[in-house]
Amino acid sequence: MINLGMASLRLYAGLVGYPSGFCARSLRTLSGMTVSQIDEEVAKLLELKVQLGGDEGRHQFTLKTAKGTRDYNPKQMAIREKVFNTIISCFKRHGAENIDTPVFELKETLTGKYGEDSKYDLTPASWSGNSLFLDPTPSQVPFARYLAMNKVTNIKRYHIAKVYRRDNPAMTRGRYREFYQCDFDIAGQYDPMIPDAECLKIVHEILSELELGDFRIKVNDRRILDGMFAVCGVPDDKFRTICSTVDKLDKVSWEDVRSEMVKEKGLSEEAADQIGQYVSLQGGMDLAERLLQDAKMSQSKQACAGLTDMKQLFSYLQLFQVTDKVVFDLSLARGLDYYTGVIYEAILTQTGPVPVAAAQNGAGEKAEEGVSVGSVAGGGRYDGLVGMFDPKGRKVPCVGVSIGIERVFSIMEQKAEASAEKVRTTETQVMVASAQKNLLEERLRLTAELWNAGIKAEVMYKKNPKLLSQLQHCEDSGIPLVAILGEQELKDGVVKLRTVHSREEIDVSRDKLVEEIKRRTSDV
Amino acid sequence: MINLGMASLRLYAGLVGYPSGFCARSLRTLSGMTVSQIDEEVAKLLELKVQLGGDEGRHQFTLKTAKGTRDYNPKQMAIREKVFNTIISCFKRHGAENIDTPVFELKETLTGKYGEDSKYDLTPASWSGNSLFLDPTPSQVPFARYLAMNKVTNIKRYHIAKVYRRDNPAMTRGRYREFYQCDFDIAGQYDPMIPDAECLKIVHEILSELELGDFRIKVNDRRILDGMFAVCGVPDDKFRTICSTVDKLDKVSWEDVRSEMVKEKGLSEEAADQIGQYVSLQGGMDLAERLLQDAKMSQSKQACAGLTDMKQLFSYLQLFQVTDKVVFDLSLARGLDYYTGVIYEAILTQTGPVPVAAAQNGAGEKAEEGVSVGSVAGGGRYDGLVGMFDPKGRKVPCVGVSIGIERVFSIMEQKAEASAEKVRTTETQVMVASAQKNLLEERLRLTAELWNAGIKAEVMYKKNPKLLSQLQHCEDSGIPLVAILGEQELKDGVVKLRTVHSREEIDVSRDKLVEEIKRRTSDV
Repeated sequence: MINLGMASLRLYAGLVGYPSGFCARSLRTLSGMTVSQIDEEVAKLLELKVQLGGDEGRHQFTLKTAKGTRDYNPKQMAIREKVFNTIISCFKRHGAENIDTPVFELKETLTGKYGEDSKYDLTPASWSGNSLFLDPTPSQVPFARYLAMNKVTNIKRYHIAKVYRRDNPAMTRGRYREFYQCDFDIAGQYDPMIPDAECLKIVHEILSELELGDFRIKVNDRRILDGMFAVCGVPDDKFRTICSTVDKLDKVSWEDVRSEMVKEKGLSEEAADQIGQYVSLQGGMDLAERLLQDAKMSQSKQACAGLTDMKQLFSYLQLFQVTDKVVFDLSLARGLDYYTGVIYEAILTQTGPVPVAAAQNGAGEKAEEGVSVGSVAGGGRYDGLVGMFDPKGRKVPCVGVSIGIERVFSIMEQKAEASAEKVRTTETQVMVASAQKNLLEERLRLTAELWNAGIKAEVMYKKNPKLLSQLQHCEDSGIPLVAILGEQELKDGVVKLRTVHSREEIDVSRDKLVEEIKRRTSDV
Repeated sequence: MINLGMASLRLYAGLVGYPSGFCARSLRTLSGMTVSQIDEEVAKLLELKVQLGGDEGRHQFTLKTAKGTRDYNPKQMAIREKVFNTIISCFKRHGAENIDTPVFELKETLTGKYGEDSKYDLTPASWSGNSLFLDPTPSQVPFARYLAMNKVTNIKRYHIAKVYRRDNPAMTRGRYREFYQCDFDIAGQYDPMIPDAECLKIVHEILSELELGDFRIKVNDRRILDGMFAVCGVPDDKFRTICSTVDKLDKVSWEDVRSEMVKEKGLSEEAADQIGQYVSLQGGMDLAERLLQDAKMSQSKQACAGLTDMKQLFSYLQLFQVTDKVVFDLSLARGLDYYTGVIYEAILTQTGPVPVAAAQNGAGEKAEEGVSVGSVAGGGRYDGLVGMFDPKGRKVPCVGVSIGIERVFSIMEQKAEASAEKVRTTETQVMVASAQKNLLEERLRLTAELWNAGIKAEVMYKKNPKLLSQLQHCEDSGIPLVAILGEQELKDGVVKLRTVHSREEIDVSRDKLVEEIKRRTSDV
């Protein structure tokens, strides 16, 4: 009843024109009230509400969803489901398990885990004191917490979930407060670069199967970056900040990046220019080999370790036949502090139907899920994160990839808009129909028979629907078959099976109907 | 950079022992700071953090999930997936579309829509002023808002989503702050009781397929209840409160219910006793017919309308062959105000593996998702809700059902625990293995071939794994087949295909391998 009291007080505040913050504050002063006093108060308020128009006041507000959120209609959901199915099938093909971690993590779990990105306090007001975060963190953090807490030392898992964001939404730019995250990770102590190569293979498979257009997967290594910074004369304490400047190279010109490094971050011009020479390099295994011979680069142990692994990675990628899309790119510098080895990012290369939301998203800020312009997947190796949670600091090496699934959705939606092909929002195989009156019961009986046999069937909820409206519904929603019942068919123990697109009709004996429907819709 | 400032201030508050509310308040006084001043402050704080132990301080806290939440491990997720698949397949078999509404709704959308249950304000602290609710409301409310807002007049849809609850969690009793809701609804102006009957058919199918044990579906009608109250002499303004007392009949004895009606709610003893005679009645179409002839009941137009529809409902249920499980039960009185016609609730009748959580859940409070002891599904007709959102009050009749999916999960988990059968957490069909050294590349090549052919395959991420450990992994995770490569097999262009459970091995020519694996795992 306390809750009713609070709800009504809130209502009261609204009715008498108090500012919206009224309730939280005034409730404190009400804390001395007993439950029955509150009940009384509530009764009075509800009466007041009735006087003020009660439910008649319901039409005064504009219908809308909450700020930063949106509905998904059946067509959008059908597209989402297709995307999910493609992605999850791929994860399962690679033997991944599914785990789920809560959308909230304790504040102490998140603190200090991701550098400049700890901006996600979404603790509900009514939960205050519980030190919770609502969490659109990179899902690697809850994953690492899960591994450490459950002492899991090796797992291959995926996780797809809605997450929530604190930022002010910018819906026109595709930024919402509620959105999906999709992650695949491999945890465990293994021989170098084998799971890393599988992650890239997975990105290649998913992007190919989704048919988003041509793509490229850029690969680099945190150790190569750090080694490069070292040999170019970047002071140790400037690695991270210089790294985040380099990270902007996919959005702004080298001149701007150089200027930021020199003018804002105080790097010497020589160092900046040396970096400039390296970050313009792109290639494959050959580039890794060349850099291993590079007079300067080869002075860094770290860089050499990274480059040796890069060679190894490319040899596995060759076996996986995905090197056509993978580029070793020294300008790739993903922001998150916890990466320790290989990093990668997949981008769409065509100038075709890249959504406006995605394109604008990159203007001056990191895009959704930490991926940049045109980016649809990204990830890397993070060998230190689990150890940060383990009481004894035991490390569990991890490598993973996040699919920029919201961007994929919007691209797929745009493609569907542009395409002549209709998106089906149901999977119904057959409509049970009748041309004559008074056959509702027969239609229902047959429909139930089909349902029980596992056939996806619909029937109109009208006693005597017109045949035309039944056929029209099939046209509209893409139902391929109609099972038509009439007096004659019932007498003959048959059903007239009509193919919607060809309008061809044949009589099918009732006991063969299920089989015939299955045969004709086996590709559905 | 502002965000970094806030994060670090929060951190600082924690380090120097300020109460957790410190930050929000002190930030206001800091609002005059410039970005660069904040940057400076942040740098100092991060330094302080390092001095205080920096990352070494990471081991001081206990690893746990946030209050009221839990992780789901792969086994639990496999069970969830199986349940979801069963339920979603059923919804799709009935031609349902999928829509998604946000987990938040505007406060004004929710206000006044569900009587005594408006207790769900979970607005994140950082969103205050936005009048949002985090919403574990019955999903009918966002659904009705969706229909009115998008002017949808007919749809058959399902919606499965995680929702969040404000209540203090009671995890030992199965009450969490984060849980799933699963709903199916049919909206549209149709001939009476046809969609209503389909909802019951769907409950029947789902509960049968899930094999949760024997069940019963109780049916009643809000109009029959109201008519009954009227003819028993309950004053109009006491209908709702008496109704919610009757609703307790599945948990407490008639004596207790009677006592509450008379002593607490001031009903006359005669009225209470007359109600007592009706609410003890159970039956089927026969009972509806009998009550239509009942001297008292037949005086109520409302009751007669409900009883006539009940007869109609049972005639459709007979066609659907589900009357074996459906009982017309006059004691069923679901709490939610917005029901206008038929109401129903499915309960498990066996005393078998009903989870402790579920059983205890009903003690003195409504169980999760508004269902009562043993209840696994419930719903009804709500013809007025959409009209409450429509500017012109246009009604869209709706009927729907919620599956108590969290309870289903826990029952399935208990069944899995009790069963000897192992729950597979992956769908891997084949493990690509080797008995000899130096065949990593060959294993990877073959694995990629299989992936590309759509086979679910795993390979160990070791250069030279032992055959025994590869076979052990198959045993552990239920992988049925092993494709073994050796020098001889490579020379012969074959693969040794081993069936794990029988240990039988045959040589399969490499170009027939995919086909052979598909043939042997076609039931997977």
